[in-house]
Amino acid sequence: MAAKTVATWTGDMSFEVELNGHKFSIDADEKFGGRNLGPRPKGLLLSGLAGCTGMDVVSLLKKMKMEWDSFSLEVEADLTDEHPKMYKDIGIKYILNGDSLDRAKIEKAVRLSQEKYCTVTAMLSKAADISYQIILNPDK
Amino acid sequence: MAAKTVATWTGDMSFEVELNGHKFSIDADEKFGGRNLGPRPKGLLLSGLAGCTGMDVVSLLKKMKMEWDSFSLEVEADLTDEHPKMYKDIGIKYILNGDSLDRAKIEKAVRLSQEKYCTVTAMLSKAADISYQIILNPDK
Repeated sequence: MAAKTVATWTGDMSFEVELNGHKFSIDADEKFGGRNLGPRPKGLLLSGLAGCTGMDVVSLLKKMKMEWDSFSLEVEADLTDEHPKMYKDIGIKYILNGDSLDRAKIEKAVRLSQEKYCTVTAMLSKAADISYQIILNPDK
Repeated sequence: MAAKTVATWTGDMSFEVELNGHKFSIDADEKFGGRNLGPRPKGLLLSGLAGCTGMDVVSLLKKMKMEWDSFSLEVEADLTDEHPKMYKDIGIKYILNGDSLDRAKIEKAVRLSQEKYCTVTAMLSKAADISYQIILNPDK
């Protein structure tokens, strides 16, 4: 098997997760019997998506010799009305700041990630619609 | 939007992820330009799956008044041959230890999670085959 994670119950609704030798806690909200010792498990899908496509874009922009000062991704999703409540529409914002940003290169990198490289996009897009926006120098 | 995560680039291939007010690092393997400051993003899908179904089972077994000493989930997956390499077959092991385990109750709880409640199973099963095993008192 190519990938493995272990989740060990640590009382109430919380688990300690081990992944690639790193450990972190996950937990339910206090409304659902949790103690909020860590994030909710479902949201990890969105964090995995952000990281997957974020690393693609970093890697591609480095190859394209483009530099930036800061780069963040915001991923938001809403839920289906019916149970089990899955993510329905997932929106990704790629937000970059810098003096030498090249919109064409960034659009190409994002498109390559979304259409070709990002395996998390490929998996989640079987269940949800994924859209994105590129936002450059929002604070200027 | 019902859920939100933010990933902020922290140099090389690493990002700091914020989810439900909690922060953790993700990073690429050293082979791929990372520094292994945190787990790989794609694996978070498996961790989210483990946590989602694990919390379901805890919640259901508590309602069924069943007690256990320890509970862990191991989730493993292999990858498709073609690119982008997605998870193809995902296997979940539910491992419980205790003196008063009731296999019928555990099977019912796991089945309810897998077939009805767990939204991460519902989403990932659109892209991969998910199977499971229940392992009771493996150390006895």
